[in-house]
Amino acid sequence: MAHLSDLEIANQSTLKPIGDIAEKAGIPADALEQYGHYKAKVDINKIDKKDKGKVVLVTAMSPTPAGEGKSTVTVGLSDAFNQLKKNVMVALREPALGPTFGIKGGATGGGYAQVLPMEDINLHFNGDFHAITTANNALSAFIDNHIHQGNELDIDQRRIEWKRVLDMNDRALRQIIVGLGGPTQGVPREDGFNITVASEIMAILCLATGIKDLKEKISKITIGYTKDRKPVSVADLKVEGALAMILKDAIKPNLVQTIEGTPALVHGGPFANIAHGCNSILATETARDLADIVVTEAGFGSDLGAEKFIDIKAREAGFEPSAVVVVATIRALKMHGGVAKDQLKNENVSALQDGIVNLERHVDNVKKYGLEPVIALNAFVHDTEAETEFVINWAKEKGVRLSLTEVWEKGGQGGIDLAQNVLEVIEEPQSFKHLYDLDLPLEEKVETIVKEIYGGSKVTFTSKAQKQLQSFKDNGWDNYPICMAKTQYSFTDDQTQLGAPSDFEITIRELEAKTGAGFIVALTGAIMTMPGLPKKPAALNMDVTDDGHAQGLF
Amino acid sequence: MAHLSDLEIANQSTLKPIGDIAEKAGIPADALEQYGHYKAKVDINKIDKKDKGKVVLVTAMSPTPAGEGKSTVTVGLSDAFNQLKKNVMVALREPALGPTFGIKGGATGGGYAQVLPMEDINLHFNGDFHAITTANNALSAFIDNHIHQGNELDIDQRRIEWKRVLDMNDRALRQIIVGLGGPTQGVPREDGFNITVASEIMAILCLATGIKDLKEKISKITIGYTKDRKPVSVADLKVEGALAMILKDAIKPNLVQTIEGTPALVHGGPFANIAHGCNSILATETARDLADIVVTEAGFGSDLGAEKFIDIKAREAGFEPSAVVVVATIRALKMHGGVAKDQLKNENVSALQDGIVNLERHVDNVKKYGLEPVIALNAFVHDTEAETEFVINWAKEKGVRLSLTEVWEKGGQGGIDLAQNVLEVIEEPQSFKHLYDLDLPLEEKVETIVKEIYGGSKVTFTSKAQKQLQSFKDNGWDNYPICMAKTQYSFTDDQTQLGAPSDFEITIRELEAKTGAGFIVALTGAIMTMPGLPKKPAALNMDVTDDGHAQGLF
Repeated sequence: MAHLSDLEIANQSTLKPIGDIAEKAGIPADALEQYGHYKAKVDINKIDKKDKGKVVLVTAMSPTPAGEGKSTVTVGLSDAFNQLKKNVMVALREPALGPTFGIKGGATGGGYAQVLPMEDINLHFNGDFHAITTANNALSAFIDNHIHQGNELDIDQRRIEWKRVLDMNDRALRQIIVGLGGPTQGVPREDGFNITVASEIMAILCLATGIKDLKEKISKITIGYTKDRKPVSVADLKVEGALAMILKDAIKPNLVQTIEGTPALVHGGPFANIAHGCNSILATETARDLADIVVTEAGFGSDLGAEKFIDIKAREAGFEPSAVVVVATIRALKMHGGVAKDQLKNENVSALQDGIVNLERHVDNVKKYGLEPVIALNAFVHDTEAETEFVINWAKEKGVRLSLTEVWEKGGQGGIDLAQNVLEVIEEPQSFKHLYDLDLPLEEKVETIVKEIYGGSKVTFTSKAQKQLQSFKDNGWDNYPICMAKTQYSFTDDQTQLGAPSDFEITIRELEAKTGAGFIVALTGAIMTMPGLPKKPAALNMDVTDDGHAQGLF
Repeated sequence: MAHLSDLEIANQSTLKPIGDIAEKAGIPADALEQYGHYKAKVDINKIDKKDKGKVVLVTAMSPTPAGEGKSTVTVGLSDAFNQLKKNVMVALREPALGPTFGIKGGATGGGYAQVLPMEDINLHFNGDFHAITTANNALSAFIDNHIHQGNELDIDQRRIEWKRVLDMNDRALRQIIVGLGGPTQGVPREDGFNITVASEIMAILCLATGIKDLKEKISKITIGYTKDRKPVSVADLKVEGALAMILKDAIKPNLVQTIEGTPALVHGGPFANIAHGCNSILATETARDLADIVVTEAGFGSDLGAEKFIDIKAREAGFEPSAVVVVATIRALKMHGGVAKDQLKNENVSALQDGIVNLERHVDNVKKYGLEPVIALNAFVHDTEAETEFVINWAKEKGVRLSLTEVWEKGGQGGIDLAQNVLEVIEEPQSFKHLYDLDLPLEEKVETIVKEIYGGSKVTFTSKAQKQLQSFKDNGWDNYPICMAKTQYSFTDDQTQLGAPSDFEITIRELEAKTGAGFIVALTGAIMTMPGLPKKPAALNMDVTDDGHAQGLF
């Protein structure tokens, strides 16, 4: 079993027609828009509403670069609920296409805990990212055309914040000059491309509660500033209708299935660093309308994705999560205990002892949101019995629920204990609260996150960031939540500081006003918004058979 | 009736479920991949083959900028056959998305002769153009990455012919510099974006006979030259498998329906100037497998689209058209007779008399391919009886079949006479021939087109083009057909020369080797491969209703 690749396991699985999955999920036939035999979009206006289901959030400890299997646990946990005959759906992010050409690595779970059809989900899926790319770049074209045609709004072409995007790993597009070639080719200016998942339109699609709200959020995007530094919005350009129209199908959640036939809504995929890193509110809410339990995930650890899930997504949607699963692995714990990457396969209980502080802080963070954590210790083949036992005992002493999960190898069956632990938690009363109030000043909101969640002692704003704070206040942008952009590998802004450092300082280098999505990004360190390809890209091993099947995708 | 817009007529039409249309077309259920309720992709490997149907090509006289309704006649003629109980399909090109944001104007027919659902076909349709954009730009990323990672192939970054594309009207991207920002951001070089329909990958998708052929054609694309001027192909980069994989769904023809329920395959849309301007071979051949009569069109007039249809598409596919419809309008005839644009609505029989030479040459051109022309005089509301009568009498004297078509106003009923004329022609034996043999030297192929079809007397190659001719011969590229890039408004390379000029000279400014698509583009004059937006783009009037319906699209 363990010898098969994810794609091989996926290919061996027999998919049910998507109409059967929809029926199981309680989606009426006229709400289902099929995209081929195994994918569909769901017209949310045609769903029968029932009492809202409970939300189980899956987060993780600070990960290793290889990841700790958070998506895999999310899928496997939903399959476990399915095996326990619970009415469950899983709500996941859509993977980006571009990065698949670079380095192998899926975003649809792994082993026997995957969503299918994986080759379609990892390629164009139902066109959502392409629609977002198109809307983003249409806005760029409208901006450059406005300037070229007389610049009535007096946009300063040196202060355009809006960048073009492609769903591609393409470093050559990071910094470019456009509009060359003389007066008929537009106005020369510096520009650049981000990867599509970094587009504010992606974040908006994921935070919108419907088409009307989508259009309103788009109209509020700040595209740049006039020559006297007044913000210019999409509403000033009067193109929010056209941009929302481009997204009219992309806003509908996508229905697929897990290997075990659990209904899955896979929709939206904003960056977890410069955006909030959660699937769409519409998918989560639609799943809640259909199922009693909705399992979903947020990018990176409790310091990043979970914090944004709580303070941005759940606040915007107005729901409360009922339980939080924290995924941990022996190898990540050892890494946080100081073990070098090439030694992670060797037994090392004393390193575990040193590294467990990282997991402890993530668990404590969950409690700060008034929620009860359940640790999912995600089994890997090199874990030893002594190591596993150490973590189990530590959790017992700490008084935190822990389940060993083997969903990669066994599917839902490997997550039954976790599901039972979560079922206990969601029956208990929780005392959910957001970390901060929106009416605090921006810098105090940042400080709260840094001190309460990261364990830091101080926040420094560079002089650039201080100037931005002042101008954001002048623009009336003080009431937005904060979206921190920080390395996922450390609680600090330095990715080499593992474990659970304390008494450290975080420097906010720069801010970005995402007035459409409705949050202020606080950037720590350098954040890469357009990846590059490696010397030997995965694309070299990709192919398609004569009858149309993808090969080498994963 | 005539007061409704195309979108209003489209919205008033009741669509049949696409499964019903497929059944009518004889497409088995397991070959149908639904995309929503009214669109589908067709898995051509699951179609039962029968005797191949006959191909009716719709072309036109030299058009006015507003167009003469060629798509409308193509759709209306297929509906007329449908009304006559013939087993018919229509095979059309897909419209580009980007230009819809600029100036109004559909590409799905008009009035009561449209393919539906028009708002989806004019937006993302089934994702084909997005897949082509992605494959095109992945190749660009692979090229820049190859150079950045050491440039093993010794690609000269000043001689990269491959450009990036977007399905967008965006003049600021015509000439750009990429790779700025220092050593970690790639290698700076000049680049530019074309509109997606201008991508060689679009032309390849339309000329491929299957996935294997698609991959082979992609592998032969010349992306640029080494520092010692040897051509570099996709095969050298070893990414043809990955690029073909990206297109695995885009290569499947899309099934939709006309307002009257005639099955339509709408697939592919290469530029009619720098590419061959016809829908895909796979769609046309699939339609021939299913129907007895296939109505299809080619871009612009008999000098451009039809010539390329005969000498590039039909040659590559190995079929012979059975009849050619030449669409003419009173207003275009008057324009060719010297009437100014703002006077075209006034009766002017003597201008018709002067302008009819344009139609005459198009009709004669069709005969040069050994085919029998049928003129479709496409009625417009300002045509007078005297004008219509003049054209009818001229055709009678000339001995050419002519039908008055009123398909815009009446749908298929307005094309019955045309259908009957075409039925007579396709029963007659034709003596089809290509215009030139492939083994002629490139310059002689160009000369044949200019002298036989355009009516010119001489071809001049600039010194740049002469050098290219020599290097193309050295590279063994002499055997490809020619794809002329010329204004559609005139038989000459000067768009102000209307009517039927003779004794003129054509200058070939430059050549482009499309070794993947398999033709050599000969450029006359300046050809725009990335359009711009007007001062008040159509996007300003676009919107989407709260329940997801597009507004202001046309």
